[in-house]
Amino acid sequence: MRQAAHTMALDTPGAGLREITREVVRWIAEQQMTTGLLTLFCRHTSASLLIQENADPDVARDLEDYFAHLAPESAAYRHQDEGPDDMPAHLRAALTQTQLCIPLVGGRLALGTWQGIWLFEHRGRPHRREIVLHLIGE
Amino acid sequence: MRQAAHTMALDTPGAGLREITREVVRWIAEQQMTTGLLTLFCRHTSASLLIQENADPDVARDLEDYFAHLAPESAAYRHQDEGPDDMPAHLRAALTQTQLCIPLVGGRLALGTWQGIWLFEHRGRPHRREIVLHLIGE
Amino acid sequence: MRQAAHTMALDTPGAGLREITREVVRWIAEQQMTTGLLTLFCRHTSASLLIQENADPDVARDLEDYFAHLAPESAAYRHQDEGPDDMPAHLRAALTQTQLCIPLVGGRLALGTWQGIWLFEHRGRPHRREIVLHLIGE
Repeated sequence: MRQAAHTMALDTPGAGLREITREVVRWIAEQQMTTGLLTLFCRHTSASLLIQENADPDVARDLEDYFAHLAPESAAYRHQDEGPDDMPAHLRAALTQTQLCIPLVGGRLALGTWQGIWLFEHRGRPHRREIVLHLIGE
Repeated sequence: MRQAAHTMALDTPGAGLREITREVVRWIAEQQMTTGLLTLFCRHTSASLLIQENADPDVARDLEDYFAHLAPESAAYRHQDEGPDDMPAHLRAALTQTQLCIPLVGGRLALGTWQGIWLFEHRGRPHRREIVLHLIGE
Repeated sequence: MRQAAHTMALDTPGAGLREITREVVRWIAEQQMTTGLLTLFCRHTSASLLIQENADPDVARDLEDYFAHLAPESAAYRHQDEGPDDMPAHLRAALTQTQLCIPLVGGRLALGTWQGIWLFEHRGRPHRREIVLHLIGE
């Protein structure tokens, strides 16, 4: 049994979902494990993680619109110092995931046919985001 | 230290919460570990997982109604190809969990007195769903 | 490779976010591991966990207000036996996290600069809550 850890830096062009499945699968392949547990951890409070459909791009656009509507910008928030898009970004992050665990079985992540891993940027401007990957197994 | 993995197939009768605690506990018992970490991973984007009260059945009914109201069917979604219940199913899955980790301590899952593990089917029709169970420990 | 597990009891003064980063980091330090995976598991269905900003206290207050608004008290819920604040507590717990996994890398939790770990009490009155901590690594 062994462990591997890696910090992945990812640039986002502004608010929206960016699929990161390929980058994650590539790192997993390099670790040459057969069975294990992958953890993805987003080191931010205004960006988050999500596993969702990667077949029809409309699903990602609808998800973006939905969370923008569910946690909108508002002058009613106390926290305004970092701009009008910051507090809704925290809310959207709180409603989705800071961390995901995915089993590795038979040398492959246990993702279903239509599942992709997404980084969900909630701030309006481009950001560099860090995702920590941790794998334990053999 | 060792690992075990298993794919559990579960039939859902249509939208709603189905408790799966008993099936999960049965598999855990077969692995004969004392301390470890269980991961449940739902291989779908229109069904999800939830840990919630299993004492009063009204709680599950209220949860179902609440998420139906929070992410309703709508003609405004771009993604309509798979039927009017598909995009709200993705939204309800995004608001709940694709994956759950539960520590195993003293040979038992660390679930509290009132906690049950639920599979949350978000599509209207019956589906067969796959949950991957991964256990690491000793 | 080894494991450690601990149940942490925490008192809450009533509804709201209470930061628990310090208590968690203290326990981690005692385990003297360098690389591993920490799991926090909340043994309740009307309290939950969240990783969110701990710099500006306004963020926590806005988060509390937002979830109070998103899942309000209502006479429309079936489940009323445990008081008007119980069913909204279940809903707010379902929208946030029962469990969090955080990698341990270089002897430190992989939390970002602004990330704190919060216990989110959703009931109105003070409660004693149990969080199970599980660490696997070396």
